[in-house]
Amino acid sequence: MDYQQIIEELCLEIAPLQKIGKVADYIPELAKVPPEKFGISLITLEGKDFYSGLYQEAFSIQSISKVFGLSMALSLAGDSLWSRVGVEPSGTAFNSIVQLEYEKGIPRNPFINAGALVVADVLLSHLKSPKADLLEFIRTLAKNPAIDINIDVYISERNTGSLNASLAYMLKSYGNIKNDVNQVLDFYFFQCSIMMSCYDLATAMLAYADHSKSFDYAGYSLTHSGVKRLNAVMLTCGFYDESGEFSFRVGLPGKSGVGGGIVAIYPQRFSVAVWSPRLNQKGNSVMGMKALELLTTKTGLSVF
Amino acid sequence: MDYQQIIEELCLEIAPLQKIGKVADYIPELAKVPPEKFGISLITLEGKDFYSGLYQEAFSIQSISKVFGLSMALSLAGDSLWSRVGVEPSGTAFNSIVQLEYEKGIPRNPFINAGALVVADVLLSHLKSPKADLLEFIRTLAKNPAIDINIDVYISERNTGSLNASLAYMLKSYGNIKNDVNQVLDFYFFQCSIMMSCYDLATAMLAYADHSKSFDYAGYSLTHSGVKRLNAVMLTCGFYDESGEFSFRVGLPGKSGVGGGIVAIYPQRFSVAVWSPRLNQKGNSVMGMKALELLTTKTGLSVF
Amino acid sequence: MDYQQIIEELCLEIAPLQKIGKVADYIPELAKVPPEKFGISLITLEGKDFYSGLYQEAFSIQSISKVFGLSMALSLAGDSLWSRVGVEPSGTAFNSIVQLEYEKGIPRNPFINAGALVVADVLLSHLKSPKADLLEFIRTLAKNPAIDINIDVYISERNTGSLNASLAYMLKSYGNIKNDVNQVLDFYFFQCSIMMSCYDLATAMLAYADHSKSFDYAGYSLTHSGVKRLNAVMLTCGFYDESGEFSFRVGLPGKSGVGGGIVAIYPQRFSVAVWSPRLNQKGNSVMGMKALELLTTKTGLSVF
Amino acid sequence: MDYQQIIEELCLEIAPLQKIGKVADYIPELAKVPPEKFGISLITLEGKDFYSGLYQEAFSIQSISKVFGLSMALSLAGDSLWSRVGVEPSGTAFNSIVQLEYEKGIPRNPFINAGALVVADVLLSHLKSPKADLLEFIRTLAKNPAIDINIDVYISERNTGSLNASLAYMLKSYGNIKNDVNQVLDFYFFQCSIMMSCYDLATAMLAYADHSKSFDYAGYSLTHSGVKRLNAVMLTCGFYDESGEFSFRVGLPGKSGVGGGIVAIYPQRFSVAVWSPRLNQKGNSVMGMKALELLTTKTGLSVF
Repeated sequence: MDYQQIIEELCLEIAPLQKIGKVADYIPELAKVPPEKFGISLITLEGKDFYSGLYQEAFSIQSISKVFGLSMALSLAGDSLWSRVGVEPSGTAFNSIVQLEYEKGIPRNPFINAGALVVADVLLSHLKSPKADLLEFIRTLAKNPAIDINIDVYISERNTGSLNASLAYMLKSYGNIKNDVNQVLDFYFFQCSIMMSCYDLATAMLAYADHSKSFDYAGYSLTHSGVKRLNAVMLTCGFYDESGEFSFRVGLPGKSGVGGGIVAIYPQRFSVAVWSPRLNQKGNSVMGMKALELLTTKTGLSVF
Repeated sequence: MDYQQIIEELCLEIAPLQKIGKVADYIPELAKVPPEKFGISLITLEGKDFYSGLYQEAFSIQSISKVFGLSMALSLAGDSLWSRVGVEPSGTAFNSIVQLEYEKGIPRNPFINAGALVVADVLLSHLKSPKADLLEFIRTLAKNPAIDINIDVYISERNTGSLNASLAYMLKSYGNIKNDVNQVLDFYFFQCSIMMSCYDLATAMLAYADHSKSFDYAGYSLTHSGVKRLNAVMLTCGFYDESGEFSFRVGLPGKSGVGGGIVAIYPQRFSVAVWSPRLNQKGNSVMGMKALELLTTKTGLSVF
Repeated sequence: MDYQQIIEELCLEIAPLQKIGKVADYIPELAKVPPEKFGISLITLEGKDFYSGLYQEAFSIQSISKVFGLSMALSLAGDSLWSRVGVEPSGTAFNSIVQLEYEKGIPRNPFINAGALVVADVLLSHLKSPKADLLEFIRTLAKNPAIDINIDVYISERNTGSLNASLAYMLKSYGNIKNDVNQVLDFYFFQCSIMMSCYDLATAMLAYADHSKSFDYAGYSLTHSGVKRLNAVMLTCGFYDESGEFSFRVGLPGKSGVGGGIVAIYPQRFSVAVWSPRLNQKGNSVMGMKALELLTTKTGLSVF
Repeated sequence: MDYQQIIEELCLEIAPLQKIGKVADYIPELAKVPPEKFGISLITLEGKDFYSGLYQEAFSIQSISKVFGLSMALSLAGDSLWSRVGVEPSGTAFNSIVQLEYEKGIPRNPFINAGALVVADVLLSHLKSPKADLLEFIRTLAKNPAIDINIDVYISERNTGSLNASLAYMLKSYGNIKNDVNQVLDFYFFQCSIMMSCYDLATAMLAYADHSKSFDYAGYSLTHSGVKRLNAVMLTCGFYDESGEFSFRVGLPGKSGVGGGIVAIYPQRFSVAVWSPRLNQKGNSVMGMKALELLTTKTGLSVF
């Protein structure tokens, strides 16, 4: 499979979408990113890498960080985690509090904000230095010790986080947040403000695509079955209420962030990360979604 | 892979579940089925078949029929079908009318009842003898000309179908049913009352697992991409609001019915059908779910 | 109190609203009514009547008929009626099916469509000739034997009643419709198509304003407490999800219909009916609402 | 009308209810109140007062305080207040966040918690010493300078207020809280912890029943129409999702609190306050509701 040629083809084909969609603007730091930016990086299990555009430029990974936080929490808490958060698609927007109230404080899955707040709470209960530990875990996965947060994004998130605070207090009222709400929120905003490039992300996600070796990074380990299940949750829940659409068009487990990044994996074959800041109405990168759709269409590779 | 041995092992392991769950009783004909019945049939792409229990006994396939109806509608209407029904998980129970009202008459996906009613409506618009044509399509897929409906189930469905009638009239009020509501309901109840064995179902589903040859049965054809997308919808939406759980535990595209049947496929490898009438609270077969979970755990085969 | 002068004043003040709002157009017969029509009729307990505009012109009373149907059902079934329908404001649009599903088939109150369908079902269970009996009851209340339905409206309602059919089948699925759904719908559409003038309506509603004598018309009787409670339900539930607004601005028990009519009563003092076909977004007459607000503001008379 | 005799009769009749219902226990201070306590106080416009039981014992007025806060906010902000909070019944439980999200941060009415938080925010925007001013207003209304908060209740409320914090942050996320969320919550918990007796409350509420003189207390004034509209909101929204039931059975504007208190007024006639800590499932005093139902049944006095 000539991935490099396919990548170059799809870059041409998505170019007309460059002006479509809207950069996330709920915090100034995201709104400032030039909207035409684009990068893609694909790495195979054999270690070959393919890329185009600004694949080495770091951006705010936002909700993609939920994959890494969930991995740590699963390693620490095991399957008991699933008594505090479900694995069902939410069927509603990513920040809906409705479902949370209706289902008595158990978030539908770990990739909606409420679920990620519960995961953050689990990490705070287990770790003395959760922020440092998260960075260490991600740096190890991505083999890049320079990965860090963007301090301006971090501060902005904290100042505009009323909706997440509302979710966190709702969880607290049902007893599904054990630590101080402000500390949970602080950690959550910290993880959202981590900066990574497409290359960093593709490298990190390779660990989820590779079933041949055990998952064990910076002291956090998952069973073979644990990795597969995490991939399953990415496929059914990774794109908010566009998860079905992503599964339908792309057919790979993946996760998006409002910074415009998307990661996806083809188990046993490759990982891929793409970045473009303009988002569709569901909050997913317009060019990123199309790039991955073309990738699986052109390669004929999807899990289905 | 020694599938036969794995099947025999899992049959032993699920035996303790024999008394758990409740047979569907909304119509007398389903309630009459002895609850301990169990069968399983697995067929590989190479044509080898493995089985256990009552794998040749026909049962009411109920919602599994939605896969076949959808295939015909896609063949007839093409992608225009997706303007009338979505591909997102519903996040709610299989018969919820709430979402339908909230989303102005566009069902979330073709596997909730409302979506299947729209699919039925499409078939009625395209076909002169939709019932005969559906039977012909299924008989061809399953290579069994004896497949037919259970007339008692069919009549019972019609007499107890108020909830489906409510859904159909709601769709009609939004203009998303074009034909006479009673005819649409009649066809829908017809398809639900089709009887097939595990062997029939595994044979029929092999067509969805097999990407090496084109999908063309009884005049209904799907593209390679069309089959994959249909599989994707099965994975994200095939088990009502337990779809995430099935994806998480089993990791295969599949579809269940309240008659206690479940079908699933491993693309490029095999299809499998299992049957046991006792259902869990979400309406899916208790032993069937566990059997498939053990199958993918023991074989290490899942799409993730 | 010089009601006639007040009525003439308010007619001048509401004149500028003549072009605001939209005539109901879900059936052609309502859409055909000239939108500038206006009439008002007020009758005191002493029997003096005051009026302006087309107060003798009959129009489609639509949901105002729910007051009369409810009165008959209460007379026939007594307080047992309240086990099948509640007395709480719905907080949602008049035809919402969501609440119905959430609350297991018990409509919030008798003035939303679902509640009126249950009331219709009660009448069908008790009466041999429910249509004739309803007409007889209303003719007696209004002292006008010429009151009848508009046959074109009746037929149109039947042809466009998918949403009401959806509600009725939902009620049936919960066992809260006992008779044939089509007969219930037919009776409901019949009652909606009754034609009355403002004068007819004010005369009929005087029975609800007058506590000094017993309520007993055409064989249907209510206790003193029964009438007061019916008035209470009008105040809290009579204007769909604008009931609070009507109570806030007008401060009288009342009921509106999408034909543009509104009735209201001031207990122990007067009844009033107003008609103007243009509706606001909540489905209530624009000029009618304003006329009644001015009436209570100018007279200083409200129940509060 | 011999109110004293009627009060004594109804006290006998409600006695059998003494063990029914459950004292609010979400904070220890409320749970500690002996559940059999009961008091009632009725004051006519002529200044005659009638009573029974512990009518002089102070209790936690909780949500009854919302009436007083709303009065001050209306005096300060005028009708512009209604752009930030509605006047419609909520149709759902008193603390539901669902409606808030669905309606973009505009609470349905000022008597659900979300609405009261907006009202509190308005007071904080207008007043330098909102707590002292609220106490001063209430002391003036009740003619009792000794009225104060229960400091233990106040502290407990603050420690268990996650759900209200969730509501407040949701409002903040929609821009409908202008001040610091913690200050708004602090003021809200302060007002809930005010202690008053039935006699205090009946005295205070007399101001709302009395239309003959202008409403002007401690510098806060309402127009005649303003008082009537406030009464209207009490009738349609004063009892959470049991407002329709209270209107139906009692037929008076009123307001309840989870401390077991209920106030009600008959415009131009009397005010009444009743207290009994055991609550029904909707959070309203069991004996209090029944006492007021009997009061209006026996006197034949209701606004309908």
